[in-house]
Amino acid sequence: MKALEEKILKDGEVIGTEIVKVDGFINHRIDVKFMDEMGCEFARLFKDAKPNKILTVEASGIAIAVSSSRCFGYIPVVFAKKAAPNTMTEGAYEAEARSFTKGTVSILHVSKKHLEKGDRVLILDDFLAHGEAGLALCDIVEQAGAQVVGLGAAIEKTYQGGAERLRARGITVKSLAAIAKIEDGKVTFGESV
Amino acid sequence: MKALEEKILKDGEVIGTEIVKVDGFINHRIDVKFMDEMGCEFARLFKDAKPNKILTVEASGIAIAVSSSRCFGYIPVVFAKKAAPNTMTEGAYEAEARSFTKGTVSILHVSKKHLEKGDRVLILDDFLAHGEAGLALCDIVEQAGAQVVGLGAAIEKTYQGGAERLRARGITVKSLAAIAKIEDGKVTFGESV
Repeated sequence: MKALEEKILKDGEVIGTEIVKVDGFINHRIDVKFMDEMGCEFARLFKDAKPNKILTVEASGIAIAVSSSRCFGYIPVVFAKKAAPNTMTEGAYEAEARSFTKGTVSILHVSKKHLEKGDRVLILDDFLAHGEAGLALCDIVEQAGAQVVGLGAAIEKTYQGGAERLRARGITVKSLAAIAKIEDGKVTFGESV
Repeated sequence: MKALEEKILKDGEVIGTEIVKVDGFINHRIDVKFMDEMGCEFARLFKDAKPNKILTVEASGIAIAVSSSRCFGYIPVVFAKKAAPNTMTEGAYEAEARSFTKGTVSILHVSKKHLEKGDRVLILDDFLAHGEAGLALCDIVEQAGAQVVGLGAAIEKTYQGGAERLRARGITVKSLAAIAKIEDGKVTFGESV
């Protein structure tokens, strides 16, 4: 998605060789119009996968999942929680995900009520780096006896190998912008999708 | 908002006398079409406040803030973070908020980049209970030299006093459904807005 690549170059902020900060339009301040454009692009890319549900992780995945749902004709969005609230009394599917940016490990939780056997689940997130969150969400979908029909990320950092790990598991992975490398503060894009 | 009261009665789940669980359509599984209706209702209620920015807290506030932004002609949404990521290098406005449901205290963070002097900020959230998150967000807006032009909550639990505390501070508070009491597993609504 050319517009996203341009926006990353214009508004993104490179930190070292691993991180591009997009908190100006994706994960702290949200440019809602642009989020809607990205969400609809996912609906175009995954139209043939015919998902009936979108799964993401709190917090940064929520906006893009909701924007995409609308372009799929308002399919439900479920977001995995990083801590099980004390009101989650009905049992949850759980899987562990490490965040390399934050240096933390989270257990992702999805209430058993909200994933059903037979669901066709599209996983969406803002970033795909090492693939930890994506793999954890795939685990959760499988625990529910449901099917992952695709995984979409706004920004893929190809060199961190997440897409490769997910594809090795048979998952169709598409991203809107694929960062091939970051060097001397400069972002180079590769083939997305 | 009659439709929200009906949905709470139909899909909400009462736990004790303090909690109504709405994880089936608001804060775990999201009914996006209904979220859009609620978001646009906020745009109607706060039209005259002329906000140029919406502020909320991760994670459950994000969907409703984004839905509302669209009906305000796509004003930016900023969501406060409960932990400062190690990429937030430019300094942040901070304020403490207790969660009675979770039994935790969070420090809410908003990057100094994303709130400006002169901003007219509408605060939106899914719940208004004791008002802790709302008051913390007001603090943050004031630290930035910006102005809170209103605070909207999808569901207000009137008996927990949050709206009163905020109004005592001069904030215009409106909710889409106001729960006056929960007794014997039954929810009674009062006057909203």
